[in-house]
Amino acid sequence: MTHAQPLVEVWRGGRLESCHAGHAVIWGEGGVVESWGNPDAIIFPRSSCKMIQALPLLESGAADAAGLTDRQLALACASHQGAALHVEATGRWLAGLGLGESDLRCGAHEPYDRDERNRLIRADEAPCQLHNNCSGKHCGFVTWTKHMKAGPEYVDPDHPLQRAIRQATEEVCGETVAGFGIDGCSAPNFATSLAGLARAMQAFAAAQDSGDARARAMVRLRNAMATHPEMVAGEGRACTELMRAMGGRVAIKTGAEAVFVAMIPDRKLGLALKIADGGTRAAEAAVVALLVRLGALDAAHPMAQKRLPAVQRNWRGLETGELRLAAGFA
Amino acid sequence: MTHAQPLVEVWRGGRLESCHAGHAVIWGEGGVVESWGNPDAIIFPRSSCKMIQALPLLESGAADAAGLTDRQLALACASHQGAALHVEATGRWLAGLGLGESDLRCGAHEPYDRDERNRLIRADEAPCQLHNNCSGKHCGFVTWTKHMKAGPEYVDPDHPLQRAIRQATEEVCGETVAGFGIDGCSAPNFATSLAGLARAMQAFAAAQDSGDARARAMVRLRNAMATHPEMVAGEGRACTELMRAMGGRVAIKTGAEAVFVAMIPDRKLGLALKIADGGTRAAEAAVVALLVRLGALDAAHPMAQKRLPAVQRNWRGLETGELRLAAGFA
Repeated sequence: MTHAQPLVEVWRGGRLESCHAGHAVIWGEGGVVESWGNPDAIIFPRSSCKMIQALPLLESGAADAAGLTDRQLALACASHQGAALHVEATGRWLAGLGLGESDLRCGAHEPYDRDERNRLIRADEAPCQLHNNCSGKHCGFVTWTKHMKAGPEYVDPDHPLQRAIRQATEEVCGETVAGFGIDGCSAPNFATSLAGLARAMQAFAAAQDSGDARARAMVRLRNAMATHPEMVAGEGRACTELMRAMGGRVAIKTGAEAVFVAMIPDRKLGLALKIADGGTRAAEAAVVALLVRLGALDAAHPMAQKRLPAVQRNWRGLETGELRLAAGFA
Repeated sequence: MTHAQPLVEVWRGGRLESCHAGHAVIWGEGGVVESWGNPDAIIFPRSSCKMIQALPLLESGAADAAGLTDRQLALACASHQGAALHVEATGRWLAGLGLGESDLRCGAHEPYDRDERNRLIRADEAPCQLHNNCSGKHCGFVTWTKHMKAGPEYVDPDHPLQRAIRQATEEVCGETVAGFGIDGCSAPNFATSLAGLARAMQAFAAAQDSGDARARAMVRLRNAMATHPEMVAGEGRACTELMRAMGGRVAIKTGAEAVFVAMIPDRKLGLALKIADGGTRAAEAAVVALLVRLGALDAAHPMAQKRLPAVQRNWRGLETGELRLAAGFA
């Protein structure tokens, strides 16, 4: 994380308490428009690249063969919180394919959604793989696998699906991937430069329906995310609340370890950022700052203000501090 | 957080994914023994200074007048997870004083302890102030307040209790505090230099029962923490597990925004560290590294290895990465 620059500060009692450094790149039609930190930093995009991982699903014809809706495509790009609507949608998706929860390879974890979490606890029921925040992506994966008659171990880095995702990643980022890591959901996650990821987001933002199969896939995924924000994350979450605040004009996506990307079709701009220390609160504040800077988000919108200045209150509701932008950023 | 230096790295797929910078100071009988980053960094100690906040409780005679046990004193220095044993102990403490939960000023939050959390959900019961991780500290506060016949609004920065804590803080840190912030539990939290905090921890470590009232208070609090680790945090938590691993010879305490302190009586050493970005995982790894370096903790102990190298596994149990020390640290 060489040359990360301070991006977001955490203040308490009129004093700097903590500070987050990182990297950010805005990519336009002519290349890098603006950058902070090191645009060449190699990162793991983590879940921020789910729309790239979904390209083979559309380009292969698998999505159309299965009759996938835009709502399902939004779920394929989601890090959802395992609320009832996400669990029901992924369960129905698998049933429609003649498959079941056990065909997924993402593992199970307690849902982030509080209502569904409490329901499971009251029913003394264990969470299942449908609750995994990546289960929508994995539904997309098994849709591809079934259509292509490929083997069931679709998270193996040598599986034809992962080879197709690697190739798509390299094409849209305009670079050879720098290896891969295993993600929380067991899928390979290909390392890219932050600039490469921003370039890919610009391609998604600028894609037109009159273009080739890839361009049409990009338009469909970008629009699916922006118009079904409740499927991409969930109530209370940054992706959902900020996409709603931007009225369906912009698609954004977070990834673990504080990655955030955005696609802004109106301006044919893409952006990508990574907080070096992996602090999510800073990634959310930083993406708000950049979306405001680019005229895509109203700084005064409550969903923006929730992340920046993100006034901090304690258990008795007393104001204790706030997040601020570091000097020299956005 | 000027001049923070890289302390802990997060690796995935053979590549650096995230990095945490910070500051650390080891203080001995002659002053600073060793430091990393900026020892003069001004920080909010947050909950890491609870044993300092408990000094007036002992020095005033309030603790003895109320017949407090070492187990209760450990709880006064705790950031506990609201497990049944913590809730019962704080409830009994208040009852013994003729007070109740509503006399606390810490606010309520969902307990971190999973069993107690699930019990509340199943019983459709709201968490109360006893579940607040700071409720033991606040029991100590009301014990002092009752003994001193002071007013009930004990978290007011001008309340005699907070004035006494401020004075004790300045005396043990050897410096004037740099103002205060309001903590999550509504109490003022006085800003100190990291070196000042390490100096205070050295005073706790070196204190002898043959000393003055302050020294005796320090010995009692330090020993109470080290011998009742289950009261200081809870099952699965760093303070509890690491103090157990060190067999009661060392007292340690974490604070929000990635502060950690330790008192090592055998070597008359104190230490304090702060991760600049507030990342708890890095504070835990860094304190393990320093305790190992000082011969207080066995690097091969499972509770040490859980924090460093802290091998990361995903929802299917696959190894995905690990934490490592940055070059030049410990």
